[in-house]
Amino acid sequence: MKEIIIKNISIGDELLIGQVINTNAAWLGEHLSESGFQLDSSLTIGDSEKAILDAFNACMDADLVLVTGGLGPTADDITKPTVCKFFDTELEFFQEAYDNVVALFKRRGFQMSERNRGQAMLPKACEYIPNTYGTAPCMWLEKNGVAFAFMPGVPFEMKGIFTDELLPRIKQRFHAVPYEKRVIMTTGIGESFLADRIKDWEDALPGFLSLAYLPQHGMVRLRLSGRHEDTQLLHATLDDQIDKLTRLIPKYIFAMQDQPIERTVFDLLINKEKTFALAESCTGGNIAHVITLIPGSSKVFKGAAVTYANATKTKVLGVPSEMIEKQGVVSQDVVESMAKGVRNLMDADYGVATTGIAGPSGGTDENPIGTVWIGVASASNVVSKCFNFGKDRENVINRATIAAYEMLRQELIG
Amino acid sequence: MKEIIIKNISIGDELLIGQVINTNAAWLGEHLSESGFQLDSSLTIGDSEKAILDAFNACMDADLVLVTGGLGPTADDITKPTVCKFFDTELEFFQEAYDNVVALFKRRGFQMSERNRGQAMLPKACEYIPNTYGTAPCMWLEKNGVAFAFMPGVPFEMKGIFTDELLPRIKQRFHAVPYEKRVIMTTGIGESFLADRIKDWEDALPGFLSLAYLPQHGMVRLRLSGRHEDTQLLHATLDDQIDKLTRLIPKYIFAMQDQPIERTVFDLLINKEKTFALAESCTGGNIAHVITLIPGSSKVFKGAAVTYANATKTKVLGVPSEMIEKQGVVSQDVVESMAKGVRNLMDADYGVATTGIAGPSGGTDENPIGTVWIGVASASNVVSKCFNFGKDRENVINRATIAAYEMLRQELIG
Repeated sequence: MKEIIIKNISIGDELLIGQVINTNAAWLGEHLSESGFQLDSSLTIGDSEKAILDAFNACMDADLVLVTGGLGPTADDITKPTVCKFFDTELEFFQEAYDNVVALFKRRGFQMSERNRGQAMLPKACEYIPNTYGTAPCMWLEKNGVAFAFMPGVPFEMKGIFTDELLPRIKQRFHAVPYEKRVIMTTGIGESFLADRIKDWEDALPGFLSLAYLPQHGMVRLRLSGRHEDTQLLHATLDDQIDKLTRLIPKYIFAMQDQPIERTVFDLLINKEKTFALAESCTGGNIAHVITLIPGSSKVFKGAAVTYANATKTKVLGVPSEMIEKQGVVSQDVVESMAKGVRNLMDADYGVATTGIAGPSGGTDENPIGTVWIGVASASNVVSKCFNFGKDRENVINRATIAAYEMLRQELIG
Repeated sequence: MKEIIIKNISIGDELLIGQVINTNAAWLGEHLSESGFQLDSSLTIGDSEKAILDAFNACMDADLVLVTGGLGPTADDITKPTVCKFFDTELEFFQEAYDNVVALFKRRGFQMSERNRGQAMLPKACEYIPNTYGTAPCMWLEKNGVAFAFMPGVPFEMKGIFTDELLPRIKQRFHAVPYEKRVIMTTGIGESFLADRIKDWEDALPGFLSLAYLPQHGMVRLRLSGRHEDTQLLHATLDDQIDKLTRLIPKYIFAMQDQPIERTVFDLLINKEKTFALAESCTGGNIAHVITLIPGSSKVFKGAAVTYANATKTKVLGVPSEMIEKQGVVSQDVVESMAKGVRNLMDADYGVATTGIAGPSGGTDENPIGTVWIGVASASNVVSKCFNFGKDRENVINRATIAAYEMLRQELIG
């Protein structure tokens, strides 16, 4: 069966002048791939009638056009009138769209304005698709056999609507070439070393599978994916190849699916009915932040003391001020004392602590920028390790966060 | 003088399957704007001859086409042969390009492979532009009066070549219209209310200025930009209009330039020589995390207690357990007690606290998902406010973070 042609159009002057990076296109590409479709092209244009009409016309060789952006309540949005022109229709009041806007405002406790009423004015010919994530509407229109789906440009709204409403429709209507992927998460080994280690395996992969290295702050995601009409063959081949791969690099793998390391740690803690608490200095709350993005994290996470000031380390965690003075705040003794301190303070099974120099200033000969001590305390033991995570502040924080979870993971599986 | 039409084409399968987000297009758009040019559109396509030829043909109404990607040494790059086809030329060995590749390998201490020799094979009709950032070439070709500039897709190389080589050429060859922009950051007012509030001002803007609303998690960035041959007039008009705008919505503006709200709060605290501490429940450390991304934040930020568990709220912050039991943990009394507790615990001038339901479960009729209480305690006062930030966990956390900084900002300027 012929594969369908899907094109994306992103509308917004802010994308063309570089004020906002278009992440919607990549997100759509990824999620279409995973559903067995392929994005043919992605075009970004400004808020102008001519640009929009030209873009629509250039997509008339496609089967499906996914349009994002240009649907907000303000005057710079000219998408809807242009849609009417292209589809030879006119704006009409949609009660259901209006009710949705009213409900959203009510839920958020805001007053509606006259402008928001305008958001319920939609092209008469469109099929209205409710947006439960915001006030901008989602619309479906067709012309000469080409389907156009319009979504808001705000990524969080676009993702929600695409997942809830559009993808099910697309799957029902068009043929997908079965796609399957496996993701393996590694940490503790750099991309080029990993590539050397698995080169022979990679070279011997069958042609319908492809491997991608996706390095990111102290981890490398490996994605093995394939497309094949024979889903059983595809599935079995992936199983087999993943099995071979895991035997090559067992100690670097922290998850057999695409998930952050804190998710692995969360699952281990749930299984073992254990809890942890954090004492963060240079990581400034990021280790706590990432675990609390997981629903239900309160079952395993007691809390964190972000002790940025030295006095707070002493007062809250009980780190002796003489120790800080004598050993320096970035030291093995201090990180172990912090880990033990927070474990006691919060009645947790494990205490995890960080102290270091995130930069861009504060480095010394002994402790250059990027130096981070990480410690993990349990009832019977304290382990600690010193790292250097480079010179970029945000990168230091992210890499220290991953290393802290990796150390806790090693304690949990050890 | 007629403005030139500039289009961008980004080539690469990895962009379409969402493996890599296309940041080049936004970067080019931004740098063209700031140099007085406008990017008309940006098209992303895969590594296929048909897609490339179609894209080139669709750009024949432009004056300049900036092409990125598809020039690497690996087999999936078919750009150069396709370029030859389109420009009716053939590949030829370019000694200068070869010398550049050799020099680069020597500098990095790597061995060259036969593949790299292929990188010196370029379309005979092209003007070769040296790339000192990598091995992929930069090329300039013309057809029927349309100029095509080809750059590598690796962002660091593309940026270097564009800045060093292409932009000077473009400026010399084409006429730029002077451009200037201002960004104003607002919070505490939704996009549509803001638009109503400033409608008369917006309607009266001179034609050469344009306003964009860029909403993002509980804030709206307003961008006023203009293009005019008379740079003095442009500058003075922007000054004047920005002055009028700030007088319309003084209490919602937290910055007169593009920066996050925590940066504004950081500057205020520095100026007033004040400090703050955080007691975070549902925000789980994110409020601490964003402030610690600012270098030097230790001057104003004492630390945070991420008290996820109720027992920790009591033990660390001194929130009476009877209060939690009686009022519920998501309540005005508890948030105020947390704010006061952390202010005392960490000897800070201000204590800021959050308690709420980030979801996806845990909502009740009284406190649905998205309910967040935020409190700010100073030496003499405690203020608190209840919000609803919707049903997406990450969005709730981000919006609560901004609202917390806004409440602290109000205290600081009040």
